[in-house]
Amino acid sequence: MTQYQQAKAHAVTPAMRRAAERENVPVETIRDELAAGRLVIPANKLHLAGIRQGAARLDPTAIGRAVTTKINANIGASPVSSCLDLELTKLRWAVQYGADAVMDLSTGGDLDAIRTDLIAAATVPIGTVPLYSMIAGKPVEDLTCDDILAAIAAQADQGVDFFTIHAGILRAHIPLAMKRKMGICSRGGSLLAKWMAYHDRENPMYELFDDISAIMAACDVTYSLGDGLRPGCLADASDEAQFAELDVMAELVGRARDAGVQVMVEGPGHIPFNEIEMNMTRQREICDGAPFYVLGPVVTDMFPGYDHITAAIGATAAATCGASFLCYVTPAEHLSLPTPEEVRIGCVATKIAAHAGDVARGHPGARQQDDDISEARASFDWKRQLELAYDSEAAVAIRSRDAGADLDADYCSMCGRDWCAIRISRELKESLSE
Amino acid sequence: MTQYQQAKAHAVTPAMRRAAERENVPVETIRDELAAGRLVIPANKLHLAGIRQGAARLDPTAIGRAVTTKINANIGASPVSSCLDLELTKLRWAVQYGADAVMDLSTGGDLDAIRTDLIAAATVPIGTVPLYSMIAGKPVEDLTCDDILAAIAAQADQGVDFFTIHAGILRAHIPLAMKRKMGICSRGGSLLAKWMAYHDRENPMYELFDDISAIMAACDVTYSLGDGLRPGCLADASDEAQFAELDVMAELVGRARDAGVQVMVEGPGHIPFNEIEMNMTRQREICDGAPFYVLGPVVTDMFPGYDHITAAIGATAAATCGASFLCYVTPAEHLSLPTPEEVRIGCVATKIAAHAGDVARGHPGARQQDDDISEARASFDWKRQLELAYDSEAAVAIRSRDAGADLDADYCSMCGRDWCAIRISRELKESLSE
Repeated sequence: MTQYQQAKAHAVTPAMRRAAERENVPVETIRDELAAGRLVIPANKLHLAGIRQGAARLDPTAIGRAVTTKINANIGASPVSSCLDLELTKLRWAVQYGADAVMDLSTGGDLDAIRTDLIAAATVPIGTVPLYSMIAGKPVEDLTCDDILAAIAAQADQGVDFFTIHAGILRAHIPLAMKRKMGICSRGGSLLAKWMAYHDRENPMYELFDDISAIMAACDVTYSLGDGLRPGCLADASDEAQFAELDVMAELVGRARDAGVQVMVEGPGHIPFNEIEMNMTRQREICDGAPFYVLGPVVTDMFPGYDHITAAIGATAAATCGASFLCYVTPAEHLSLPTPEEVRIGCVATKIAAHAGDVARGHPGARQQDDDISEARASFDWKRQLELAYDSEAAVAIRSRDAGADLDADYCSMCGRDWCAIRISRELKESLSE
Repeated sequence: MTQYQQAKAHAVTPAMRRAAERENVPVETIRDELAAGRLVIPANKLHLAGIRQGAARLDPTAIGRAVTTKINANIGASPVSSCLDLELTKLRWAVQYGADAVMDLSTGGDLDAIRTDLIAAATVPIGTVPLYSMIAGKPVEDLTCDDILAAIAAQADQGVDFFTIHAGILRAHIPLAMKRKMGICSRGGSLLAKWMAYHDRENPMYELFDDISAIMAACDVTYSLGDGLRPGCLADASDEAQFAELDVMAELVGRARDAGVQVMVEGPGHIPFNEIEMNMTRQREICDGAPFYVLGPVVTDMFPGYDHITAAIGATAAATCGASFLCYVTPAEHLSLPTPEEVRIGCVATKIAAHAGDVARGHPGARQQDDDISEARASFDWKRQLELAYDSEAAVAIRSRDAGADLDADYCSMCGRDWCAIRISRELKESLSE
């Protein structure tokens, strides 16, 4: 039985217990939210057990509004750039800087080897887009139903924890997307649209959905319903194509649950800041509370090189208003594959959004570390302040570059000692309380 | 007469004309918004004319909700780190990366020399906190009323365009601030609180406010009413101390206008994301529409080293909901003075917030460059896409590091050619329209 099915049967699993422990919430909360479909624990049974001798076992993580907002880092080789060691390095950095899950989006190199090695190394859930391995080395037009089911089964057996399946984009949506400025910016969405146009048939992921669900249920792989029609620029945001697909995803949420499969829904994309709340509300209402997994949203198109920031802005609004899971965006977005350093920056920026959102929505305990670091800041406990900094290494590097920046100082180089507001304010408080 | 007084008299000045031209709005809009106090053009008469032979002349800029959101970069030496050439470099970088105004917050080195050289080099408005030069080299307790008026007059005569004056923090507010976790985190606020406590007297900036206004009116220096009680951590946000000072600032807005002086109001600080809209609305209502100039707001305390991002998040919400002027925050905030490179990053991050806010509030024309770059992206016009990138150099550096990243390619290294969504989507559109 899947975590969802067990929760529906009022059973509590070790994975639920561990997720509850990590969140400091009662296990009943995890179970009840799971049973309601408002929370998922992406945890392939094989990854939970360890996929082979010596492999890492998954440490289960819950994704939903009842728990802290989670973040995902996309890694993976492409035909232009491929190296297994580099991907393992990115995995390590991603987890070190806060990724709660990692997606292997490799489209080049030895896909099977990269995937199994990443799963073997990962204690966080690993997600994939199985379509990529279905069509590796051949034109998408040659994709058959057998290919689809075989790849789904193979990756489930490799221990993948969640699959992005672009089953919501239908043949009827293609003309809507063709009216756009950017068309279809999702890799999976564009490939399936090409297949549909070539064969003049419906999306095979949609047609095979119940068969796919049956395979996924056997290993408890979680659905992440891919938004093949997410807007790729502000001009395409919140349009007919996007919402037509969302309606289909809402139907698929119900069908996934009927099959006992845990399910999340993926979302935009490029969205102006003022439309984010509406997008979050709409998804929650029509998708019956299924966790929303968003990419950004990026709130402006004209800052390539800084899209970790444009995305962190949108993601904070999204996490405040309804998203449960934030896919990171790195500075390399729209330009190149990220380096490990850019993976780090993308993770920290996205973690800021997740955390700021948790604070804003009043998630219990979310503000504790803010209050602790502020306490350390107010009392010139530099050592503790730097320890409590999310990225201590980065904070130490800046703090320690100035002359006289010792950790006992009751000031910093911004104001110098005489005019340090915090020091003056402390002395004032002491003198007034005498 | 000041720009405000002329606008009240229905006159149109060359500065209004130039500001209107830069914004692509009718000059009557600028004049009417100025007259209503909802817009300022910080422009010292002497800086407009050029403070000395060969000096730069100010290119006037409007700040208010009727025009695009503006950003400010703080630079300046401290006793710990001081070098005139470095500050001139920071000025250059700040303007190159989008600063519409620059504040010289020097507290170390030869303050007069740094200030006059920055004004002489700047085509953007220069702001200062005159308190710093009033007390340079002596304890704040020794500050006299004569010192205050003399420094205000001297800096007005040097051509400073706007002054931060912390006149809103009163003696009665100090006990409110002492209850806080962080106390008083504003340099000016803490120094004046110390003076008030020592002398057991009211804030001299408040008591001398009308005298100060008379001096500022003579050169048309604009007020930026400093928020000495801005919260320095989330725990202190939106508290009694902050709003008690805001009430006094509202009174001072009226008194500044009565004296013919243009006036803006400074705002927080550290504010949780969900409280930003309330803060913007409250300022606008009680300060009669005076432009709101905010620092961040920073939406979480625990990411030192990344406060350009925590601030860009808050600033986007602020710009969407009511702020007109965003003070940048750099990665060095809370840790050190920024390097020129950090000045650059701070400017770009804040420009993202200003622009995303302008898009979100539907400011006319704001989305044009987004649409243009998206058009270039959709058509694989890499050259134009990189030209239209806000920081072309940063985008080019990422794009050009991969093998095969020539500018004629109809793909990038993220997906490689075969699986490039944009290429597939374009081909699909062409085939469907045949």
